[in-house]
Amino acid sequence: MALLNPELIRQKAEERTIDNSAKEMLMHTLREGIETVWDRSEMQKPACRFCSDGLSCSRCAMGPCRIISEHHRERGVCGADADLVVSRNLLDTIATGAASHSDHGRDIVETLYKTGKGEAPGYLISDEAKLKRIAEELGIETSQKSNDEIAVSLGYFLLDEFGMIKNSLGFCSRAPEQTREIWEKAGITPRSVDREVVEAMHRVHMGVGANYANILIHGLRTSLSDGWGGSMMATECSDILFGTPAINKSMVNLGVIDEDYVNISLHGHNPMLSEMIVKAAGEQELIDLAKSYGAKGINLVGLCCTGNELLMRKGIPMAGNHFNQELIITTGALEAMVVDYQCIFPSLPRTASCYHTKIISTSDKSKMTGSYHFDFKPENAVETARAIVKTAVENYPNRIPEKVFIPGDPVELYSGFSVEAIKEALGGTFSPLIDVIASGDIFGAVGVVGCNNPKIKHDYGHVTLAKELIKNNILCVETGCAAIASGKAGLLTPDAAFLGGPKLKAVCKKLGMPPVLHMGSCVDCSRILVLLAELAKALNVGIDKLPVAGAAPEWYSQKAVSIGSYFVASGVYTVLGVMPKIAGSNNVVDLLTKDVESVVNAKFAVEPDPKLAAELIISHIENKRKELGI
Amino acid sequence: MALLNPELIRQKAEERTIDNSAKEMLMHTLREGIETVWDRSEMQKPACRFCSDGLSCSRCAMGPCRIISEHHRERGVCGADADLVVSRNLLDTIATGAASHSDHGRDIVETLYKTGKGEAPGYLISDEAKLKRIAEELGIETSQKSNDEIAVSLGYFLLDEFGMIKNSLGFCSRAPEQTREIWEKAGITPRSVDREVVEAMHRVHMGVGANYANILIHGLRTSLSDGWGGSMMATECSDILFGTPAINKSMVNLGVIDEDYVNISLHGHNPMLSEMIVKAAGEQELIDLAKSYGAKGINLVGLCCTGNELLMRKGIPMAGNHFNQELIITTGALEAMVVDYQCIFPSLPRTASCYHTKIISTSDKSKMTGSYHFDFKPENAVETARAIVKTAVENYPNRIPEKVFIPGDPVELYSGFSVEAIKEALGGTFSPLIDVIASGDIFGAVGVVGCNNPKIKHDYGHVTLAKELIKNNILCVETGCAAIASGKAGLLTPDAAFLGGPKLKAVCKKLGMPPVLHMGSCVDCSRILVLLAELAKALNVGIDKLPVAGAAPEWYSQKAVSIGSYFVASGVYTVLGVMPKIAGSNNVVDLLTKDVESVVNAKFAVEPDPKLAAELIISHIENKRKELGI
Repeated sequence: MALLNPELIRQKAEERTIDNSAKEMLMHTLREGIETVWDRSEMQKPACRFCSDGLSCSRCAMGPCRIISEHHRERGVCGADADLVVSRNLLDTIATGAASHSDHGRDIVETLYKTGKGEAPGYLISDEAKLKRIAEELGIETSQKSNDEIAVSLGYFLLDEFGMIKNSLGFCSRAPEQTREIWEKAGITPRSVDREVVEAMHRVHMGVGANYANILIHGLRTSLSDGWGGSMMATECSDILFGTPAINKSMVNLGVIDEDYVNISLHGHNPMLSEMIVKAAGEQELIDLAKSYGAKGINLVGLCCTGNELLMRKGIPMAGNHFNQELIITTGALEAMVVDYQCIFPSLPRTASCYHTKIISTSDKSKMTGSYHFDFKPENAVETARAIVKTAVENYPNRIPEKVFIPGDPVELYSGFSVEAIKEALGGTFSPLIDVIASGDIFGAVGVVGCNNPKIKHDYGHVTLAKELIKNNILCVETGCAAIASGKAGLLTPDAAFLGGPKLKAVCKKLGMPPVLHMGSCVDCSRILVLLAELAKALNVGIDKLPVAGAAPEWYSQKAVSIGSYFVASGVYTVLGVMPKIAGSNNVVDLLTKDVESVVNAKFAVEPDPKLAAELIISHIENKRKELGI
Repeated sequence: MALLNPELIRQKAEERTIDNSAKEMLMHTLREGIETVWDRSEMQKPACRFCSDGLSCSRCAMGPCRIISEHHRERGVCGADADLVVSRNLLDTIATGAASHSDHGRDIVETLYKTGKGEAPGYLISDEAKLKRIAEELGIETSQKSNDEIAVSLGYFLLDEFGMIKNSLGFCSRAPEQTREIWEKAGITPRSVDREVVEAMHRVHMGVGANYANILIHGLRTSLSDGWGGSMMATECSDILFGTPAINKSMVNLGVIDEDYVNISLHGHNPMLSEMIVKAAGEQELIDLAKSYGAKGINLVGLCCTGNELLMRKGIPMAGNHFNQELIITTGALEAMVVDYQCIFPSLPRTASCYHTKIISTSDKSKMTGSYHFDFKPENAVETARAIVKTAVENYPNRIPEKVFIPGDPVELYSGFSVEAIKEALGGTFSPLIDVIASGDIFGAVGVVGCNNPKIKHDYGHVTLAKELIKNNILCVETGCAAIASGKAGLLTPDAAFLGGPKLKAVCKKLGMPPVLHMGSCVDCSRILVLLAELAKALNVGIDKLPVAGAAPEWYSQKAVSIGSYFVASGVYTVLGVMPKIAGSNNVVDLLTKDVESVVNAKFAVEPDPKLAAELIISHIENKRKELGI
C-alpha cells in the first residue's frame, strides 16, 4: 500500500467514504501503510460464492457441505437442500443478533436490580418518574415503595422474562391489538427472551428444522423477543438508570479529538460502562493528574452505539460510526480506547500497536488478544472506571507528537429524540404529528438504521437515502451508525430543513426540528417501535397500516438482521442495502421478499442503490396512505 | 449407481458398515439406486478445505471471509484471525448442541409441570419414589404434598433454572466438591440453562469475543449447563414420568421389522411423544384395525435415541442407530416413521417417496418438507398418538409386497442400566464396584458415546474401541448410537464377557452382567456424570482423579461436541474419533488437547483409529490409577 501514488491514494479514499474527515484520514493510512477495514475487504476478495449465497454448511461433522446444483450436489450429507441450508444459516444469524441485544439488555436489567439492592455502588435511579411509570405499566405496585424497592421489583420482573416461568413479555402489550393479533395468528408471539434464541439454536441442529418456511417463521418470533423484549428492556432500564434523553446539541466527526487534551474514546454498546467513565473523567483529581502531565484536561469522545448512548443523554461529542473506529486511533492523539462489546474490530490492538493508544477491554464476554483488560462489573464500577481513566491519563506522556494527525472540523448536530422528548416537543401529545402526517405535510416516516459495510461506500447509503426521503417530505428517524452518518453530513440540525421538500421544510421550521431525528443506539430501535405503536394506537390500526418504512442501507451485523426481522414482523416494510446471504435459495428469497407479506403484512426488499431504495419506499408509503384514505 | 457391478456393490457395502443387516440392505439400495447418507457423503467430496479447517466465516455481512495465510488473507474483514474464526465457529457448535439438549429438557420439564397441573392428560407420574427423591434433593418440601403437587413444585423449580432469577443449577451440587471448586476457579460454573447458550451466541457476534481462549472457556461453561442442567433434567424428569429404567432384555437390528405386522418406527429423541405412541399402539381397537387389514398386529420399533428411551424403559425392539434410519425405510415394510426432533435426515420423505412409508413429523420445531405433520402437544397427546397409529395402520394395505426386503435376524441385547439399576444390581451400594476398580479387577471405566459419521466405517469405531477396552479389563458404559452399535455387535449381553480380559470376564460372570452397559440415550450421558460423581464422592476425590475416560469414536452432531466438552469440563479425558473443524488454528488445537488440562485437569485427544484410541485411553487410565495409588 505504501507504494500507491498520491493520485491513486486520493482516488481510493474517494471510493471508500463520503465522510470528509475519514477521507483525509484514509489518505493518511494509505500513505502510511496502516491496514483498515477497507484494505481487509480488498484482501478478502474474491469471496467464496457458496458462503456468499448461504449454500455452505459447516454445522455438523458429517460435512462440511456445499450445495452445488450444477454438479449434482443438491443435498448435504444429511440430506438438507439449498432451502434448508440457507434458512438454517439465516436463523443462526438472527439468533446471534437477538442474543446480542438481549444479553446487553440482561446486563442493564441486572444492573438496575443490583442498584435497587444496593449492590451496585455508583449507579443511581436517574429518572424516577420513568421508573414508576414503567413499573406501573407492567403492573408492579409502586405506591408504598421506595425507588430502590421499585427498582428491585422491576428488575426482578424483567429478569423473569428471560426465563420460562411467565411465558410472556410485558412490553409486547405496548403493540397495538391489531398487531398482536397478527402475531398470535402467525404463532410468533415471543414467549421469553432467552427461550426463543435457544429454540432457534435447537432448530438449526442437524435433523431438527427441516422446512425452510417453518425455520424462518421462528426467526421472526426470535427477532420479536429482541425488539419488544431484550432491546426494549435495555432502552427503558438505561433511561431509568442514566436519564431519559432530551433534545441536546453536540458535535460529531474525527475532529472532536482535541490535541491539547487526554483523549479517551468510548466504544461499544452498553452505557453501564461508559456512564461510569464519564463520572470518573469528571473527577477533579483525575483532571488535575491530566494537567500535571501538561494536558488541558480530559476529552471524552464517543464511537458507535456507546457514543450514541452518551450523545443522547449527555451530549458527549461523537467521533464517528463503525468505520471510524480505526481512524480515530490513527489520529495519534488517542490515549485510550475503552470498549465493552459488539462491533469492535478484533484487530484494534494491532492498529493501536503503531501508536501509543491503549485498547482497554472491560467485559469478560469480550476479552481481546492484545488489549489491556479491566474486569468491570456493577459491583466495582466506580473504582474500575477511575482506574481506566487513570491509565489513559498516564498514557498521555507516551503520545508521539509527530504522529498526531487530526483531520477536519467537527460538525454540529442535535440528538436526544427519545419518544418522551418528541412527545414533549410536540406539546405533550402526538396529535400534532398525526395531524401533519394525515394532512400530508409529513408524507410518512422512515426508520433508517444500521451499520457500515465495505460493500457500500461509507455513509453514502445512509446519507443519500435520508436526503432523498426528506426531499420527498418524509421524516427520518434514525439510530446507530445511520444516525451518526447523518450527523456527520449535517442532517441532524434544524438548518438541514432546507434540504427537505417544501412541506417538510415548513413543518421543521415551525417546530424548530431537524428533518432527521436521532433516536439513539441500535437497541434504541425499540424507541422506533414504541413511537410506531403510539401512532398506530392513536389511529386505531395495526403498525402495518401506517405510512412508514424501515431501511438499513449499510447494514453488516447479525443484530441488524434481527432488527430488520422485528421491523418486518411488526408490520414495517424494510429495505436492505446489502443482500443477506440467501441468494442460494429462490424459495427463501421469495418468502422474505413476497410471501411473508401474507403472514405479517410486511416484507423485505433489497436495493443497494439508495436512490432506488427511496423510490421503493416512497411508493410503499403512497400505497399505505391510499389504504388509510389520507 | 444402478450401473455398479455386483462385486463393486459388495465391496462398497463392506467399506461402509460392519452392521451385517445394514450391509445386506446397502447392497440392496446400491442395486436399486436409492440414495443413502453414504452416497451423499461421496457426492459432497471434495469438501471445502477452509470450511473443514474452521477457517471460513459467514457470520456477518462484511464477509464471507476465509483465512488463507499463504495468500495474505490472515484476517477477515473485521480483523478476526484464524484463532478467532475457528473458536467462534466452535462456540456456535457447542451452543447449538447445548441448546438442543436443553430445549429437549425444557419440553420434558414442561410436560412434568403440566402433568402435575392436570393439563397433560395421558401422562402419569410413573416413578413416585424418584419424584419424591429428586424433589427432596433439590430442597422442595414434599411431606404434605400429593404427587401432582410435588410434580408442579419440581417442574416450577426446574423451569426457573432456565431463567435469570436463581443463577444456579440445582443438579450441579451432585458434582463432587473438588470438581465444583475447579469450576469456580475457572469461572465456568453454569448460571442457568438458557443464559449460557444465549451468552455464547452473543460472544460469537462480530466484535464481542476477540480472544480464542476466553471464547472456548465459555464453551465449557455452556456445555456444563447442558450436562448438569438441561440433559440431566431431561433424564430425571423422563424417569419420573415414564419410569426409571431397569435391566431388561430385547432385540436389535433391522431384522426387528416383522413382515406380518404393521410396522411403525419411532425416531428422534424425546420420550414424551414415543411413550404415548406405545400406549396408543397397545389399544385393542387399533390392534383390531390392523388385523382387519390382514396384519397380525402392530409392531413398534425404535431408532436412535427415541429407540434408546423406549428400549431402556419398555424393552421395545431397536431397529438401529443413526445410519440405519434410511435403511429401515428401504425394507419396504415400514408403514410409518414417526419422528420428533434431532438427527432426523431432512431427506427422509424423499427416501420414503419410493415406498408406501409415511414420514410423520410431530414437533412444531421440526416440520419437514414432504412429511405428514401432526401437531403433538402434552395437552392433546393421547388423541394425537391414536391418530398417528391409525394413520400408520391404514397405510398397511398400501404396502407393495414385492418391494419388501428385511435383512438378517435380530440380535439379543440387555439394556436399562440406569444409575439406579446398576446400584440395585450391586446390592444397593456402589462399594462392590469401587472395590473391583480398586483391586484392578475392573481396570477402569470408559463412557463410549456419540453418533455415526460417514468418515468412519459405520459402527466400526464404536465396536472396535469397546472390544479393545473390555479386552483390557475396562468396563464400557455407553449411550446413544454407540450403545446401539455395541448391541448390534452382540456386546450388550453377559455372554460377551468372553471377549473381555480375564479379570473383567470374572467380574461379569460373577455379577451376570455384560461387559458393555447400555445407559440410555444421548441426554442420558447425564447418567454417566451421575455415576462418575457417585464414584468420586465415595473416594472423596474430584471426577478428574478417577481412572475413567470418555470416547466418541463416530461423533457427528453438535450435541456430541457439547457432550465431549462437558465430559472434559467435568474432568474426564475424552478421545474423539473425528477431528472437529479446528485444524486451521494451532492455538485452538493446543488449547483443547493440551492447555485446557491446566484449567480443568482433563483434555481432548483426537484419534480416528479405535485401536490407537484404546491405547491412549489405557495409558491415561494407568496414569490415573498410579496417581490414586491403586
